[in-house]
Amino acid sequence: MRVVVALGGNALLRRGEPMTAENQRANVRRAAVALAPIAAEHELIISHGNGPQVGLLALQAESGQGAAHFPLDVLGAQTEGMIGYLIEQELGNLLPFEKPFATLLTMVEVDPADPAFQNPKKPIGPVYSEEDAHRLAKERGWTVAKDGAHWRRVVASPLPKRIFELRPVRWLLEKGTIVICGGGGGIPTVYGEDGKLRGVEAVIDKDRVASLLAQQVEADAFIMATDVSAVVVGWGTKDARAIRRASPAALSRFEFASGSMGPKVEAARDFAQRTGRTAGIGSLEDIPRILRGDAGTLVSNDVATLEWASAETLALFQD
Amino acid sequence: MRVVVALGGNALLRRGEPMTAENQRANVRRAAVALAPIAAEHELIISHGNGPQVGLLALQAESGQGAAHFPLDVLGAQTEGMIGYLIEQELGNLLPFEKPFATLLTMVEVDPADPAFQNPKKPIGPVYSEEDAHRLAKERGWTVAKDGAHWRRVVASPLPKRIFELRPVRWLLEKGTIVICGGGGGIPTVYGEDGKLRGVEAVIDKDRVASLLAQQVEADAFIMATDVSAVVVGWGTKDARAIRRASPAALSRFEFASGSMGPKVEAARDFAQRTGRTAGIGSLEDIPRILRGDAGTLVSNDVATLEWASAETLALFQD
Repeated sequence: MRVVVALGGNALLRRGEPMTAENQRANVRRAAVALAPIAAEHELIISHGNGPQVGLLALQAESGQGAAHFPLDVLGAQTEGMIGYLIEQELGNLLPFEKPFATLLTMVEVDPADPAFQNPKKPIGPVYSEEDAHRLAKERGWTVAKDGAHWRRVVASPLPKRIFELRPVRWLLEKGTIVICGGGGGIPTVYGEDGKLRGVEAVIDKDRVASLLAQQVEADAFIMATDVSAVVVGWGTKDARAIRRASPAALSRFEFASGSMGPKVEAARDFAQRTGRTAGIGSLEDIPRILRGDAGTLVSNDVATLEWASAETLALFQD
Repeated sequence: MRVVVALGGNALLRRGEPMTAENQRANVRRAAVALAPIAAEHELIISHGNGPQVGLLALQAESGQGAAHFPLDVLGAQTEGMIGYLIEQELGNLLPFEKPFATLLTMVEVDPADPAFQNPKKPIGPVYSEEDAHRLAKERGWTVAKDGAHWRRVVASPLPKRIFELRPVRWLLEKGTIVICGGGGGIPTVYGEDGKLRGVEAVIDKDRVASLLAQQVEADAFIMATDVSAVVVGWGTKDARAIRRASPAALSRFEFASGSMGPKVEAARDFAQRTGRTAGIGSLEDIPRILRGDAGTLVSNDVATLEWASAETLALFQD
């Protein structure tokens, strides 16, 4: 089997944890434990988020000594190196020495006419006071928006059109290589009017890119690992119910949080609909069980409508 | 032909230039212009330095907002992503769209018993006052040393033993992929007593790693590009003479600067001696001419002893 696993940013850094190298490594190790049995048995591509990391590197780059403006494409490339390294090393330590690994820098083409560029909505980096936000907007050409009590920079989140390194990914998989790629949704690039490719200040949704990657490498399964065990309807209310299995169509009845579960559900529906195969969403630790169909929320054309998780299973989600 | 080109840190950032993303991109573009004709005709691996970049990222990480201690292996991984991205994009813009590229994160094994760890000598990062240097040494377990009027952190520069991603590099080359790897000498790693691989706070000489890479992929030619046109004996004196061609043995008569030309000459001798093929050292712009044997200093077993460059050629070096 060929499997694509997308590790959520929250799977790589627990909420509230300081983003030290040690904490990141400890979380990557948890992910590696969950991935090792799959890596030993199947062809595996690992993709990952980079939200907290890119935010921190942006903050470091723009303050203190050695301050320099590094645009988001350059910062994204840095995080692909850093997070890819930790995954490659920690997962490698759990597998036979002979298993080949490749962490590939990934550029993704977006459309400069994508409407997202006219309406940047994705908040990134630290929070600012209103005054600072407006000053930075002026100085750096940023778009800023209110986010709760504070202000933040917001950037476009355009749709991914093309993953440039797709052929190397395929060639490496065919040789049994575990491939780490598409980190942070890949580096967003556009063709300019001069026909040259260049980076843009945007963030591509990592689950969308992982779904596209899974489709284009003809993956047999696509799993998104996060910090909850399943897709839950009515999250946080007394009527919360977890979905065990669903058809892509059945999921369209619900609204999910746009910053977290929404893109995952959309990515899962897209994969299932276009390939006829199964996408899974669930917790990091459950990855092997999700692949066997024994945990998480599974999205597939083979499901008539929707099955809720049993009451016992649900109890786990409400911990 | 299979060609390995190592781009020096100075080829990627001119001396004294601020390390903005724009300046780095402009320099990478110069490198791309020199590399494009080779990439169009031959199998090509590109390796690169990261000295100024890793110094700046270390400085950014440890000061200002969002400060966090990131060890050298993690910072090195960040620079492999960042510099690899710029090279991949800029060189890609000069080649047909169909040409595949892969920027590969590269881990290199070093020996924890390497004597370099007992005697760290490689200066990295910013300069400090004596007081600050000693405080940081205490706080962070650094070794610090006097460097001219200031103090700097010094780290071990152990010998490379093994390039972990060698098989993926070979597989990608066989498919015609331009491979960018071994950046900054690769990420230094050791096997601990628990049998697990982990990063270490060290810097591996990038020319040594590029030479090892060139040997192990059985490259037909190995070129180190820097900011001077050839290897010069008596650099900066009125007796300065540039070397046109030399046997590895003939070069052993001279001493070259340990921080700059010394490692390049050593890497060239090592490649030429072990493979019977030619290594070249020269300026970035001359890469295609060096490959044809028309520029730079060429090191080969086929040269009886040593040929000096002509007086006219020498005039160029003295500009």
